[in-house]
Amino acid sequence: VAKLYFYPMACSLASRIAAAEAGVDLDFRPVDIFGERVLDDRAGTLDSLSTMGKVPVLVDDDGEVLSENAAVLQYLADLNPASALAPPPSQRSRYDLQRWLSFVGTELHKGFCNPMFSKGTPDSVKAWIRENVDRPLAVVAGHLDDRRDHLLGETFTVADCYLIWALVLIGFAKVDLARWPALSAYVERVRQRPHVAAAVSLEWEMARAASAKRN
Amino acid sequence: VAKLYFYPMACSLASRIAAAEAGVDLDFRPVDIFGERVLDDRAGTLDSLSTMGKVPVLVDDDGEVLSENAAVLQYLADLNPASALAPPPSQRSRYDLQRWLSFVGTELHKGFCNPMFSKGTPDSVKAWIRENVDRPLAVVAGHLDDRRDHLLGETFTVADCYLIWALVLIGFAKVDLARWPALSAYVERVRQRPHVAAAVSLEWEMARAASAKRN
Repeated sequence: VAKLYFYPMACSLASRIAAAEAGVDLDFRPVDIFGERVLDDRAGTLDSLSTMGKVPVLVDDDGEVLSENAAVLQYLADLNPASALAPPPSQRSRYDLQRWLSFVGTELHKGFCNPMFSKGTPDSVKAWIRENVDRPLAVVAGHLDDRRDHLLGETFTVADCYLIWALVLIGFAKVDLARWPALSAYVERVRQRPHVAAAVSLEWEMARAASAKRN
Repeated sequence: VAKLYFYPMACSLASRIAAAEAGVDLDFRPVDIFGERVLDDRAGTLDSLSTMGKVPVLVDDDGEVLSENAAVLQYLADLNPASALAPPPSQRSRYDLQRWLSFVGTELHKGFCNPMFSKGTPDSVKAWIRENVDRPLAVVAGHLDDRRDHLLGETFTVADCYLIWALVLIGFAKVDLARWPALSAYVERVRQRPHVAAAVSLEWEMARAASAKRN
């Protein structure tokens, strides 16, 4: 069984949701991304796993390493095509999936979540990031509107696994998503999926425990 | 023939290189992303093309719209599988391609090029961005080292189309790439490819002309 290196409530949560939705069994291993040893004394460091230095890192049975959400999420989806978490590679809609994985990854994750929750980001940068997050949120809200339950329409895909993680964190940073009813409705709808609810609740508890151990 | 909406020297340059390398004919149309009318009086605005509001935007013969570099580049590569610009979707190395498309898109493009060359980015943010670009550049340099001519090894792929664009812009922002000999050698090697040289030279001239018209 492949190993998935994660940090609680980091973007690797999207992979945990995708694996559960796809029925793929993974061996989840915590990584001390801040070198704090608060998660697990046996937790390794990221640099020894992936030169990119970020979770998620997937290491399969042959020792092959994959990282970056857009790649890991598509890999997990393709392990079980019947789950329909990604359109088949030959279909036009596969590129729409890649389009949304890229938009969430650049505009919401790298544009907001990553710097907002990284240690050492200056307050002036955080203020600028906060000013600029409304635009991509409005793009997502306008796309969902009242017409689409998920990014690709009727079907829940790995792009939604990534988006729900980003929106949970953006809400946690006290950005008021209620200004876009389509976004609030989406968050409520997707968080009711049993696998999503279980994954968020599990990692939230882990993050709380690590925080308690740290203080 | 599909239309490709671009802005000179913006990230849509990667699509121009990919199309040339793949032998795919596209109808290139300039877009006034800054609303300046310096490119072409007939140039449209982005919002009417794609709600995401960014180049490249690909509109195929059926009027279907695709955007985001990771998606457009894979789409162009798959139009001509014989060009080997992307490994076949069924191969493990396809996910490695997606990994690098994501890394360039998040760490170099959204993490540096986009805010550095956007109007209105505060100087304090630019300084912070500049401090943080060495880390991803070192990751790419360490990966290429002396062992790989391209991101995926021997074969030039659309991930290289994206990376060479980012490195040209990062060099233009006066980040000294010579600190990583593997990066300088890569830039020199890839810029010698005829299609890369022609695309960069064409858009550079367009950008110069627009700048002259603006001032």
